[in-house]
Amino acid sequence: MKKPQGLPHTLKWQGDADGYLELLDQTLLPHEVRMRVCKSAEEVSNAIRELCVRGAPAIGVAAAYGLCLGTRPFREAPPARFMEHVQTVSDFLISSRPTAVNLAWAVRRAAEQARRSDEETSARIWSAMLEEAHRMAREDAEACRKIGETGAELIPDGGGVLTHCNAGALATVAYGTALSLLYVAHERGKRFRVFVDETRPLLQGARLTAYELDACGLDVTLLCDSAAASLIARGMVQAIVVGADRIAANGDTANKIGTYGLALAASQHDVPFYVAAPRSTFDRSLRDGSAIPIEERGADEVRRVGGVSITIDGIGCYNPSFDVTPAGLISGIVTEVGIIRPVNESEVRKIFDLSACKALGGI
Amino acid sequence: MKKPQGLPHTLKWQGDADGYLELLDQTLLPHEVRMRVCKSAEEVSNAIRELCVRGAPAIGVAAAYGLCLGTRPFREAPPARFMEHVQTVSDFLISSRPTAVNLAWAVRRAAEQARRSDEETSARIWSAMLEEAHRMAREDAEACRKIGETGAELIPDGGGVLTHCNAGALATVAYGTALSLLYVAHERGKRFRVFVDETRPLLQGARLTAYELDACGLDVTLLCDSAAASLIARGMVQAIVVGADRIAANGDTANKIGTYGLALAASQHDVPFYVAAPRSTFDRSLRDGSAIPIEERGADEVRRVGGVSITIDGIGCYNPSFDVTPAGLISGIVTEVGIIRPVNESEVRKIFDLSACKALGGI
Repeated sequence: MKKPQGLPHTLKWQGDADGYLELLDQTLLPHEVRMRVCKSAEEVSNAIRELCVRGAPAIGVAAAYGLCLGTRPFREAPPARFMEHVQTVSDFLISSRPTAVNLAWAVRRAAEQARRSDEETSARIWSAMLEEAHRMAREDAEACRKIGETGAELIPDGGGVLTHCNAGALATVAYGTALSLLYVAHERGKRFRVFVDETRPLLQGARLTAYELDACGLDVTLLCDSAAASLIARGMVQAIVVGADRIAANGDTANKIGTYGLALAASQHDVPFYVAAPRSTFDRSLRDGSAIPIEERGADEVRRVGGVSITIDGIGCYNPSFDVTPAGLISGIVTEVGIIRPVNESEVRKIFDLSACKALGGI
Repeated sequence: MKKPQGLPHTLKWQGDADGYLELLDQTLLPHEVRMRVCKSAEEVSNAIRELCVRGAPAIGVAAAYGLCLGTRPFREAPPARFMEHVQTVSDFLISSRPTAVNLAWAVRRAAEQARRSDEETSARIWSAMLEEAHRMAREDAEACRKIGETGAELIPDGGGVLTHCNAGALATVAYGTALSLLYVAHERGKRFRVFVDETRPLLQGARLTAYELDACGLDVTLLCDSAAASLIARGMVQAIVVGADRIAANGDTANKIGTYGLALAASQHDVPFYVAAPRSTFDRSLRDGSAIPIEERGADEVRRVGGVSITIDGIGCYNPSFDVTPAGLISGIVTEVGIIRPVNESEVRKIFDLSACKALGGI
């Protein structure tokens, strides 16, 4: 299993138990490749808030490491006291961004590992938690690779594929979710043109997706978000693949703002619209998408581009980071254990039932 | 009839027959208000190509003045020779931008005035042409005002109105087309919130529409284009009003890229979607929208924002300036002589039949 070439690591724990988390600062891409060092939970939380690390799966793994960094100073405390710190630091990290469920999922999984540990010293409990974070990092890369292998069949040979935002190697530990389908399809010899929405306000498509697809040798064309409906109407798109930040029990999917409009255009022109995400992106405690909390970000993201003001001073802005695409507009959700289609509650349930997973063609 | 306050002129002929065309350089807004002087057809054509003056109606009037400027040096030539220059300069100006039909319409109307003139000297023919350009400028302002008065009833009192690009005072000699409805509704005491799509790539919404609505005292909120579908889905939009660059005989409408996607979202959520345009925007020689030529502009408009590169160097871009919204998605077309609804070929035909116009409630 090899990492797409030409790309720096999204995130990596450097060193042993006294090490630190190294993150690729994605706010500087594509013009500058600079790693950012995090040695505390605060530094990890800031990196998440500032979108230095972004993408639901990558945020999850980064936060798990953040929990290790935030509790490391208390390795000499009695276990009960140590576990209080685990709780405090967990709550702090989970509050960094509200929509991506993988963040809470990963932090809780690392904390749970500590809670269940039968080690007698805090130092050992802590080590088990770091091991769990390492395991999550490995599993994320594996799950992403599996997503690609499972979904590559959906990518046309010839024609165009449209994607939005960055659900690529840079959004995960490796491979990506939506883009993993493209990498695997390309490895298998399929040739196609990838159309990338620039993805305002923060231009993850223009800055990150164009950068990583190009670095990996794919044929990339960039467009403004508002041009996508025209591209689809002209018959230039044979499939759309996007990632997800949170998926409700019925398959309703929160993803980067603009995804819903794409799904409407896809539906109008009978273009298949796929979501790709690991199982950790599902939040089955939510019946449908109406319950997904949507992060609203600051007006300056809209008012400025690359530090340059593009409008009048002080204007009010509407700037939700995500929108919700109803399950009915999604042709399939590609996970590491199979493709959910049609997208509805009972089909979603199957991927959490291991015996049913086999029937979906996964694992 | 008063001009919205607080706004500089979009375009104005300064002086007498030896005068010049003064244009507000819209590429510098909202940060700088600078007038650009045009003393030749080349200067007018460049101003149109560079989008210093833009908006279908304003382009038309500017080009009519451009025809006067381009033929002025030949006022001493024999009339037959002079008319050859009228033809050459007309063709040159019409080639400046391919989609806005008002450009060709206005140039041909000024040229036709010259052709039909029974004046015996070229100087007098030329003066008749300049008079015709002045007349078009006056008529544009009057038509826009009429569009506003005709369509103001469609604007909700309370709630939100969404618009895209700039179909405002800056796109016309005064008042605007889509925004004229808002100005008149506001004058009449209606209160509503205007949501403005930023309108990538050239950000006419953020730079121009936000600027002029704010200058005229309306309540403005800016959003990224891709957030519009989410805004509509949340029930925050009670009407959408946009302008048009060319309307086919059946009502299919070419307008700024992104309009079609908005119309799809409006249709999905039963939000009325209106187009506002003077009759000069109709091209009844085209049966439907598939025949409208769509201008493709350079990749740097996508690759850069305000001079700043936002992506990898040399990436290919898809950058059509316009898309086509099918008549079936348009709730009504507001013209200076009445509202076309439902939008279809026979209803479109009525606004060109003066007796039928009265029945539409116009004139």
